[in-house]
Amino acid sequence: MSTFWSEYPEIEEKLIFVKNNMLEKSKSSEKYLDRSFEYLYSTGGKMLRPAFIIIGSLFMKQKLNEEKDKLIKDLASAVEMLHTATLVHDDVIDDSFLRRGKEAIHSKYSKEYAVYMGDYLFSESFLILSDYNIPRDVMKNLAQGISTICKAEMLQNHYRYDSKVSVEEYLKVISGKTAALFGISLSLGANQVGIEEEKTNKLYEIGNNIGLAFQITDDILDFTSDEKTLGKEVKSDIIMGYYTLPLLLAFHSENKDELQKIFEKDNMNESDLDQVFEIVRKSGAIEESKKHAKKYIDKATNELDKFEDTKGKQILKAILPKILKRSY
Amino acid sequence: MSTFWSEYPEIEEKLIFVKNNMLEKSKSSEKYLDRSFEYLYSTGGKMLRPAFIIIGSLFMKQKLNEEKDKLIKDLASAVEMLHTATLVHDDVIDDSFLRRGKEAIHSKYSKEYAVYMGDYLFSESFLILSDYNIPRDVMKNLAQGISTICKAEMLQNHYRYDSKVSVEEYLKVISGKTAALFGISLSLGANQVGIEEEKTNKLYEIGNNIGLAFQITDDILDFTSDEKTLGKEVKSDIIMGYYTLPLLLAFHSENKDELQKIFEKDNMNESDLDQVFEIVRKSGAIEESKKHAKKYIDKATNELDKFEDTKGKQILKAILPKILKRSY
Repeated sequence: MSTFWSEYPEIEEKLIFVKNNMLEKSKSSEKYLDRSFEYLYSTGGKMLRPAFIIIGSLFMKQKLNEEKDKLIKDLASAVEMLHTATLVHDDVIDDSFLRRGKEAIHSKYSKEYAVYMGDYLFSESFLILSDYNIPRDVMKNLAQGISTICKAEMLQNHYRYDSKVSVEEYLKVISGKTAALFGISLSLGANQVGIEEEKTNKLYEIGNNIGLAFQITDDILDFTSDEKTLGKEVKSDIIMGYYTLPLLLAFHSENKDELQKIFEKDNMNESDLDQVFEIVRKSGAIEESKKHAKKYIDKATNELDKFEDTKGKQILKAILPKILKRSY
Repeated sequence: MSTFWSEYPEIEEKLIFVKNNMLEKSKSSEKYLDRSFEYLYSTGGKMLRPAFIIIGSLFMKQKLNEEKDKLIKDLASAVEMLHTATLVHDDVIDDSFLRRGKEAIHSKYSKEYAVYMGDYLFSESFLILSDYNIPRDVMKNLAQGISTICKAEMLQNHYRYDSKVSVEEYLKVISGKTAALFGISLSLGANQVGIEEEKTNKLYEIGNNIGLAFQITDDILDFTSDEKTLGKEVKSDIIMGYYTLPLLLAFHSENKDELQKIFEKDNMNESDLDQVFEIVRKSGAIEESKKHAKKYIDKATNELDKFEDTKGKQILKAILPKILKRSY
């Protein structure tokens, strides 16, 4: 696991359980399959979504009883497995060879294997959920969450190679692709420990805004980090036609003609891509993107300030700046 | 829809509803996405799995009330959507250009689109299920069913290019890949209208045996039909390293050396494949495969004969020979 949570032992400890739990729940009777899941989970990550479920549950002042504690950890495992499923499928599609600094599943095993591994993770996470008498609306919420992610990914795919995509359309994509599951996770954790509806709805909004800021920051990092820091191939998005906020803003800036000229080429080479990066940076698109991200973090902070003091509120407030300032 | 059910208006009528229902439930707010689902569902198919849910419900003598009737049709829609999701993903993997005689989704749209479309179908089908207070064990059953399918597909992928796979190992793969969902569908339909557990367990076995016979027949057809009749590329399985029962039996026959010699080549051409087909046919592997299929149909028939007379029993008995004798 990444060191993102090392300052928060109450989160880190549960995330370690979640990780082992995921491995346990993914076990089949086939050694070959089990080894591939061990590999998959060993690639780590910040585990933000399961952490958000745990943080949501910490908006309750009372300590959770054993039963609730188990439920929260299982829900966190299910959500991380759902998220991992979408990552494995993303990698198949993007043809990325690295994920979190390690070889991607489809590259280490095969594309076919990765597609089914993702499907298997989907069904196993629903299997965890079906172990509880989870209310219909919660199941619905989660299924809707995945369906929202997929719709957004299909939409993103539809927008490929389109430099005219508006900021609004981009926000719609990342809202579905990333932010929805952040919102669902935070509110679901709170809902399951008995926080009242009005507050869980607010937490959904807060999670959603954090998710938007997180994704925008991710997209900015593609233009400001080098491959080594980020651990994935940063230029592949552009080649594959996925234009994120910094590039879209540059396409709407004074430098658009200069940029368009490069994109009119049949095959962009490494030096073309370097030039694209250069133009994006000098166009002011990075700063403008950062403003967007900050706006969503500010929104989340304002709403969060209205909550009474709880461990959940404290931790969430503490990590907000880290969402914006991370370099990986 | 195929004409498979035209003699059984009580099934056909409900399957038409299921088809429209699937389209309705897949609707998003994006026209682009909606059109792709219209295309996907227009490619038809025999809809055996949803039909098995309906047939299962007809093991109850009393006519279903409106509420139960709706539940059965929704369950049938959910199961067909789950199955369609696995088909869409299969096609991505096999690189088949045709599915049911029409261009496959990944070919008409793109691979990335097809992967997400499958994921979307998974989540939408769980969304349908979460609309009901479906008992935990049923949800569990279905999630387990999909997980079984995926595990089997991963195992099949693991066995690729391995001519030493035993009949037992092959049966394990198709049991998970195909037969499990047949069993789940038949028993689920019965369970949901109040058929007692002992009988639904028997119906699971019956469905399972029919599924095995169905898959073996499918695999035989790859060696006996031409591309035009079957509507998919029949030789691609071999090139992709998926060796099914007829070929595996030929690999265990007296003709094994002759066969092995062809497979030792780096690239098999069209005439090599023709020779493979020729060897499989003369080795007696087709007849032996047919015996396996018949064995499972006989098992199903014997168990079915012990049931009291109902519409469900009548229809199931009537279609059993059609499972073995179909040519498409």
